[in-house]
Amino acid sequence: MIEHTLDVPRDPAQEVVVQAEALHELLVKLLVKKSMFAAEAKVAASRLVEADLRGVHSHGCRSVLRYLKSMDLGNIDPRGRVLTVSETPAMAVMDGSRAMGHVAATRAMQLAIQKAREIGTGTVAVYNSQHFGAASVYVLLAIEAGMIGYCTTSTGTATVAAYGSTRPGTANNAFAWGVPSRSGPPFVLDMACAISSWGKVESLGLYGRPIPEGWALDAEGRPTTDAKAAKTLRPASGARGSALAFLSSVLAGPLVGGRMPLHKTRAPDVEASEHFFYCIDPEKFGSLDRFYAELDATAAEIRALAPEEGFDRVRLAGELEWERSEKWKREGIPFHRDQMARLAEAARELGVDVPW
Amino acid sequence: MIEHTLDVPRDPAQEVVVQAEALHELLVKLLVKKSMFAAEAKVAASRLVEADLRGVHSHGCRSVLRYLKSMDLGNIDPRGRVLTVSETPAMAVMDGSRAMGHVAATRAMQLAIQKAREIGTGTVAVYNSQHFGAASVYVLLAIEAGMIGYCTTSTGTATVAAYGSTRPGTANNAFAWGVPSRSGPPFVLDMACAISSWGKVESLGLYGRPIPEGWALDAEGRPTTDAKAAKTLRPASGARGSALAFLSSVLAGPLVGGRMPLHKTRAPDVEASEHFFYCIDPEKFGSLDRFYAELDATAAEIRALAPEEGFDRVRLAGELEWERSEKWKREGIPFHRDQMARLAEAARELGVDVPW
Repeated sequence: MIEHTLDVPRDPAQEVVVQAEALHELLVKLLVKKSMFAAEAKVAASRLVEADLRGVHSHGCRSVLRYLKSMDLGNIDPRGRVLTVSETPAMAVMDGSRAMGHVAATRAMQLAIQKAREIGTGTVAVYNSQHFGAASVYVLLAIEAGMIGYCTTSTGTATVAAYGSTRPGTANNAFAWGVPSRSGPPFVLDMACAISSWGKVESLGLYGRPIPEGWALDAEGRPTTDAKAAKTLRPASGARGSALAFLSSVLAGPLVGGRMPLHKTRAPDVEASEHFFYCIDPEKFGSLDRFYAELDATAAEIRALAPEEGFDRVRLAGELEWERSEKWKREGIPFHRDQMARLAEAARELGVDVPW
Repeated sequence: MIEHTLDVPRDPAQEVVVQAEALHELLVKLLVKKSMFAAEAKVAASRLVEADLRGVHSHGCRSVLRYLKSMDLGNIDPRGRVLTVSETPAMAVMDGSRAMGHVAATRAMQLAIQKAREIGTGTVAVYNSQHFGAASVYVLLAIEAGMIGYCTTSTGTATVAAYGSTRPGTANNAFAWGVPSRSGPPFVLDMACAISSWGKVESLGLYGRPIPEGWALDAEGRPTTDAKAAKTLRPASGARGSALAFLSSVLAGPLVGGRMPLHKTRAPDVEASEHFFYCIDPEKFGSLDRFYAELDATAAEIRALAPEEGFDRVRLAGELEWERSEKWKREGIPFHRDQMARLAEAARELGVDVPW
């Protein structure tokens, strides 16, 4: 069961704790230094800090150094203007204009929410964007608006074995579904389609731990437990993970003129990222009171089930991340000290004070 | 890997072969005998035969005896009139009126297709319906219309362990995604959220085989390999399967006033089934030629990857079922002789000739 229960690695001796507000402030300053508009820098920084608060460190501020470098190289356009290029009352297609993916994705989900509010559902697909970070933070926007939200994205090359082969056929696409609640944490499913995320493999490598058996293959397609040798991941649940990844790449890809991962290269000056958002307003489908009453009662009953060995209690999807986020908002976010040292160094280079 | 590769059990010595047209003819006659209108009986029979052609026998004609009995008991209304109760250009809510679920679901997907044709996407949710059979046959309707289709359904009580518990928390909801192609079989992902479908457990029991270890728990929550003792299935991929099942139950459930599986009973006179359909017209999102060129090229390259041990070649989702369907349309569908004997007996009781 290790494939499912492995959480963020923790080791206080290797960590420093940073307050969410201070981190947000630093990220905004760094992004503004690269000439992003402050309003858009704040949006991007919020999405990054939200990911860190949930413990999705691979898609939090750890990525910002990569983004800053991409801006230097001209691959992310800090002033890229996200444009709606075609639209009906139910859907829209947006050009991400190679701006920060977090900005394009936030705009797209907001437009999907607005359409859903008016007509019951909203679908927005984005091409020519950049990496948008953690999928969960966008469905949280839908949840805050009282909506059911879905999103998926396609960024990288094929790094997940096709089902039935040891050779890569799909990317490790992530997708998320969010459902609001009136009592208790909202439901947030955020999953990648391989057995693990690459971020988790990276985190294990950073903490000097082996990756579990059965997760990865090396460059020759042989099984490996070495995070550094891992080149291809196995799909989750075999055929199912493989198919879910393929589907994500279709919605966030060819649907808006983008390429499938097998055709993407590792060259960031050529490659864009595509995103897909779908939003449902429950109010247009039936009674809101009945919707929430049924959902919240069921969630409470599932949480009250007897936990099996190895679990302290039963949680619904996204509940652990919600608890963590609430706790870390109060107490600060623990990061690996090496990661924070690199961030501080980048800040020094740009002449930005580190507010901790 | 047995969880993913186990296919329909086959044993020619225990089988009879029936032509698809003859089966369709018999099913229509049986349903009309229970006072369904011929046009609707044909729709329902088509969906059932399509499931059998794909090898999804649990959701094919094997179910018809249960449906006929439900009509006798007044739980399925053979003349139930499927009604659109609320609607915007993007979405609709339908009352399934306890008609055959296959009829309501076909109507709903057709309406979603029509809306997508006009406005880019269509979403239709159905309440007060009945069991709709195999999810894949509805996304095939979208595919035939050149659309990307999604559907999910919620019928039964909670029979899948909540993640972190050995007690049931969700149903074994199925969902399907379909993507059209111009060359080669279309992509059809049809998955349940538990490690296995209950139908597969039933099929294994029928052929006198044990179910693989790790699939099921008995009434006391203990692991079992006995198909008859199995009362609760494990979720696929742990937390992920559990969350995907929960999500399906929300879309096909509380969204349109229905109950979650934990609150459903086994009493068919009380319980209804809910469905959810979502359709996307690629033509409204970008160039169709580019969409198909990219998709078909990628599919061909994935199919050409070197297969690993235990696979004759690499297939995309739904490809095996597509090949089987094409083959069985020509050669007839093999069924377990006991299943066909029971169907023939039902036909005799209703005074209907068996056309083989």
